[in-house]
Amino acid sequence: MTKPETPTLDRVAGPSDLRQMTDRELRDVAHELRAEVIDAVSQTGGHLGSSLGVVELSVAIHAAFDTPRDKLIWDVGHQCYPHKILTGRRDRMHTLRQGGGLSGFTKRAESEYDPFGAAHSSTSISAALGFTIGRDMGEPTGDAIAVIGDGSISAGMAYEALNNAGAEGRRMFVILNDNEMSIAPPVGAMSSYLSSLSDLSRKGPFGGLVAVAEGMEQLAPKPVREGARRAREMITGLESRGTFFEELGFDYIGPIDGHDIGQLLSVLRSARARSTGPVVIHCCTVKGKGYAPAEGSADKYHGVSKFDVGTGVQSKAKANAPSYTGVFGDALTEAAARDPRIVAVTAAMPGGTGVDRMAKRFPARVFDVGIAEQHGVTFAAGMAASGLKPFCAIYSTFLQRGYDQVVHDVALQGLPVRFAIDRAGLVGADGATHAGAFDIGYLGALPGMVVMAAADEAELVHMVETAAAHDIGPIAFRYPRGNGTGAALPERGTVLEIGRGRMIREGTGDVALLSLGTHLGECEAAATLLDAEGISTTIADARFAKPLDMDLITKLAEAHGALVTVEQGARGGFGAMVLQEMAAHGLLDHGCRVRTLCLPDRFIDQAAPAQMYRDAGVDAEGIVSTVLTALQQDRKIIDLRAMRGQGD
Amino acid sequence: MTKPETPTLDRVAGPSDLRQMTDRELRDVAHELRAEVIDAVSQTGGHLGSSLGVVELSVAIHAAFDTPRDKLIWDVGHQCYPHKILTGRRDRMHTLRQGGGLSGFTKRAESEYDPFGAAHSSTSISAALGFTIGRDMGEPTGDAIAVIGDGSISAGMAYEALNNAGAEGRRMFVILNDNEMSIAPPVGAMSSYLSSLSDLSRKGPFGGLVAVAEGMEQLAPKPVREGARRAREMITGLESRGTFFEELGFDYIGPIDGHDIGQLLSVLRSARARSTGPVVIHCCTVKGKGYAPAEGSADKYHGVSKFDVGTGVQSKAKANAPSYTGVFGDALTEAAARDPRIVAVTAAMPGGTGVDRMAKRFPARVFDVGIAEQHGVTFAAGMAASGLKPFCAIYSTFLQRGYDQVVHDVALQGLPVRFAIDRAGLVGADGATHAGAFDIGYLGALPGMVVMAAADEAELVHMVETAAAHDIGPIAFRYPRGNGTGAALPERGTVLEIGRGRMIREGTGDVALLSLGTHLGECEAAATLLDAEGISTTIADARFAKPLDMDLITKLAEAHGALVTVEQGARGGFGAMVLQEMAAHGLLDHGCRVRTLCLPDRFIDQAAPAQMYRDAGVDAEGIVSTVLTALQQDRKIIDLRAMRGQGD
Repeated sequence: MTKPETPTLDRVAGPSDLRQMTDRELRDVAHELRAEVIDAVSQTGGHLGSSLGVVELSVAIHAAFDTPRDKLIWDVGHQCYPHKILTGRRDRMHTLRQGGGLSGFTKRAESEYDPFGAAHSSTSISAALGFTIGRDMGEPTGDAIAVIGDGSISAGMAYEALNNAGAEGRRMFVILNDNEMSIAPPVGAMSSYLSSLSDLSRKGPFGGLVAVAEGMEQLAPKPVREGARRAREMITGLESRGTFFEELGFDYIGPIDGHDIGQLLSVLRSARARSTGPVVIHCCTVKGKGYAPAEGSADKYHGVSKFDVGTGVQSKAKANAPSYTGVFGDALTEAAARDPRIVAVTAAMPGGTGVDRMAKRFPARVFDVGIAEQHGVTFAAGMAASGLKPFCAIYSTFLQRGYDQVVHDVALQGLPVRFAIDRAGLVGADGATHAGAFDIGYLGALPGMVVMAAADEAELVHMVETAAAHDIGPIAFRYPRGNGTGAALPERGTVLEIGRGRMIREGTGDVALLSLGTHLGECEAAATLLDAEGISTTIADARFAKPLDMDLITKLAEAHGALVTVEQGARGGFGAMVLQEMAAHGLLDHGCRVRTLCLPDRFIDQAAPAQMYRDAGVDAEGIVSTVLTALQQDRKIIDLRAMRGQGD
Repeated sequence: MTKPETPTLDRVAGPSDLRQMTDRELRDVAHELRAEVIDAVSQTGGHLGSSLGVVELSVAIHAAFDTPRDKLIWDVGHQCYPHKILTGRRDRMHTLRQGGGLSGFTKRAESEYDPFGAAHSSTSISAALGFTIGRDMGEPTGDAIAVIGDGSISAGMAYEALNNAGAEGRRMFVILNDNEMSIAPPVGAMSSYLSSLSDLSRKGPFGGLVAVAEGMEQLAPKPVREGARRAREMITGLESRGTFFEELGFDYIGPIDGHDIGQLLSVLRSARARSTGPVVIHCCTVKGKGYAPAEGSADKYHGVSKFDVGTGVQSKAKANAPSYTGVFGDALTEAAARDPRIVAVTAAMPGGTGVDRMAKRFPARVFDVGIAEQHGVTFAAGMAASGLKPFCAIYSTFLQRGYDQVVHDVALQGLPVRFAIDRAGLVGADGATHAGAFDIGYLGALPGMVVMAAADEAELVHMVETAAAHDIGPIAFRYPRGNGTGAALPERGTVLEIGRGRMIREGTGDVALLSLGTHLGECEAAATLLDAEGISTTIADARFAKPLDMDLITKLAEAHGALVTVEQGARGGFGAMVLQEMAAHGLLDHGCRVRTLCLPDRFIDQAAPAQMYRDAGVDAEGIVSTVLTALQQDRKIIDLRAMRGQGD
């Protein structure tokens, strides 16, 4: 019973080593792995709770299946730290979520054991079905295993995948990791249903193992099962229904104890040996398992900063300014206090979006729809159509999930839904998968949509007020992750004039910077650098990406030798639309050299946000270099043409 | 029993008149209404089958509920013709789906009886829940009723809404219109499940009415129901499960005969009188009901052109050239015959997308995932990751439903999924809701994505071949609804060089048109008009919206006084990105006047496609006028500046 001198985990260079071990040794590996995960995350921060919940599952799956030939797909992927340690990345765990280091999610580029990367939820069953088809068509791939949480499986996309996979009837494995938590406690009817499945089994006269045994029986070939079901109906006279998963064509095994490695190994090996069709294996786990400070906290240490292993105390840096999320939450709450028609919608992120602040004062007016952005947007549209004033608070990257609903249900009908778009631009440790890069473009293209971006937290307060007052059509406002600039917050926001920017700094005509969003500070830093070069710089804050302030733009274009737009977004966004409007107004024809500084045409890997923007070339230096190039390129090209003898 | 002299339908100016009638009279109304729908659609074409399936339902809902105070929301909305006739639009039915006429869908701007417009599927339950919250918060609105088909309810979005509405537990009505058809026969496990519910009831010892009676009992308050369920469990010793809908927190009534107006009225009135929470009423209907040619056809006359009422023969105009859809389907099939790794995915549109042609030869390699664009895209990504070569064939407007999956699962991982984007640009009778306006922008913004647009059907064949060969990352190609130009089709497509356009017509330097897509013909027509004005016109076909052919663009910019881009898409698309790249390369600084002709910043109502483009100003005349403005505006602005005394 004493631990061996050499830790068992040290003998695991990769999953194949697990397959040589006894079940007792695997238990030891799990034990050591849990300690290692806690230790690693205490040094880097990261998604601790969900990783601790799947320690035994990670060991058991790799021991029972033939990874990487079998394709193990972790839904969302933030629970993959034990998996990373087991699959050859143990020595790089100290680089987790840092610039140049391991991703906080699964990532194809990082390991052959990550066959399908993730970060957004509910994609794993779809991907697993894709690999399953590949296997059946002769691609060199084994079985596909999707591991998905009870929060993620409640999203529509997961249901679509179950619906399709159940009908296909092919051998594949869905492991439901049921910890009764997503980031926040899960909501919705399916969540209650899954609880009832677990409770039924736990409370039943024969305990959980009976359910497992029944599950194993269900692995009999389908005709036998059908016969048994019919027989049961004949005897009892009652129509017999299976679980939700069985109705969708899956075999259902469980629920089983996801921390009992013996039970896990036995069920997984048996399922692997005998399954002929799709199987759901329902595992009950505890988020934060085995680390008291995590198990005891409300969010189970979902995402933590560095912490002290002994006490669990996280070393959160003291912020100098409030977070944009918090400022939004407070401003929304104030607006809601003044206007009883204001309601808020979140898709499973009450804390992340800050609407939890409103929920504390007005619980009946904040709606957490679950991981369901499609429904959330149209639900908000329905509320707007009824006369309410909904704020739909969804991160930029997740609003992509509700894009058609923004187009078809909101913009096309001109309904006054207010989109509060947090995490705009690059987001830091969560990396490329969470970048809010595309919203300016995908919203700016929509007729009737108003698109704002806050330059600082005071501006954000004004934009909340503006959105609340804008009751004639849809309006969106974006703001980044992290803390504000320290700008003094107004007692109450001012309703901004739609489509009007503001002058920040008037120069003498060399160059104008037209900023959208919180890079206004970078513009100011750039102006200081340009001053040193003897280049006078005007700065304006566009405030609106749509409608554009053409008076302001005309003034800037006519009075300056160069105009550079600056935004925290991808091509096809603010700068592109400024150019398009300028072209339409003939403002590009007369010598003002326009450049658009935006995110480059590549995905930017995780690092500190400032470092990511530096990597992207979108910072003060990038602005200066764009300005200098604009001013000099002119001469260069003229020289070139002179040499060629004036081609134009 | 003889019909009255004056048709009963003539006495229906609006739904309130129905509420004064006897059940017998309502039966007469339904009878006459069916004949009227057949007659109206025979003259205009439209969605006949689904409208015929809900004749009785339309009469019964308006008779039993208090519309427009009660909010009746038709999912998709193409089954709304009887509803339109009953709600004051009878005399305009001859204008259906035509320019300036009634929309083919529900539309808020058209009637107070259309509280929430639709055209894309599976939005109705979300919207109904929004109205329900509005009612409960004191907005002047009654009960919300969503009518949704069995195809539409299988989409993830509908599931998300059920999951949320079931947990909310508020009084609302979901009428499941189960005709075992969407546009094509529905697929997926949920479809089989719904069939099993119907069959069970139909085959049961007491027939369908028992199920109804049971349903009515279930309208007892919840605690009573829970008690009954527990009692049943105690007596039988068996765990008792309800239907899928009950597990999600809905009361379930049905299935009932959706063509028995007596049964409908009784169930709806009773449900309205007694329900306290969310209710699903499961109605079985027959698509095309009551018109033999429709009931007998494979798609139940889903969408028809004008037809002869007596024979059912549709007057399809003889096409001069094959449809783009057909050309794609054939080219895909040919490519699939050469490469066994090619597979295809459709989201419930095998016929609409043309993949049914491939399915005829290679049924095991074409996957209809149901109305499930989110899953469909990621499923394709999974197949690509396994080594297969998926073509994901989704209309432009519906790919908006899978946008996050394109970003997160395909582009970010660089997986070689081929997107075949039909219905690009304006689509005609289906109107603004189906416009494929945004894909160039929302795809062009994504790093690593290749975006092509076919200028004619021969180009489309080349692009299928190019996509098949492009195995290093994602690639998309767009093409419009309707017939090709008559271009000679190549025996086999040529693999195009990525990011290379082609010269179509070389002028002498006045103006260059850079066309993307099938408006190349309009460019040629414009060139002829411009010739007449003495303006020499160069035309190039960009072929690629991404990557752009900067060599070609540089050549055009340097050699011409003006450059006009032409595309069938919204702002922020091709033209915007051309400008942005030109700015980055300094190509805007030296006198070539660039203009971008694209769809205007408003939604375009239905009409013939050519008329819609005329309305949008995107046709040969629009091109000419853009060119003339570009060439003259220069002088105008100079004059202005001269008058102002040179502000610059």
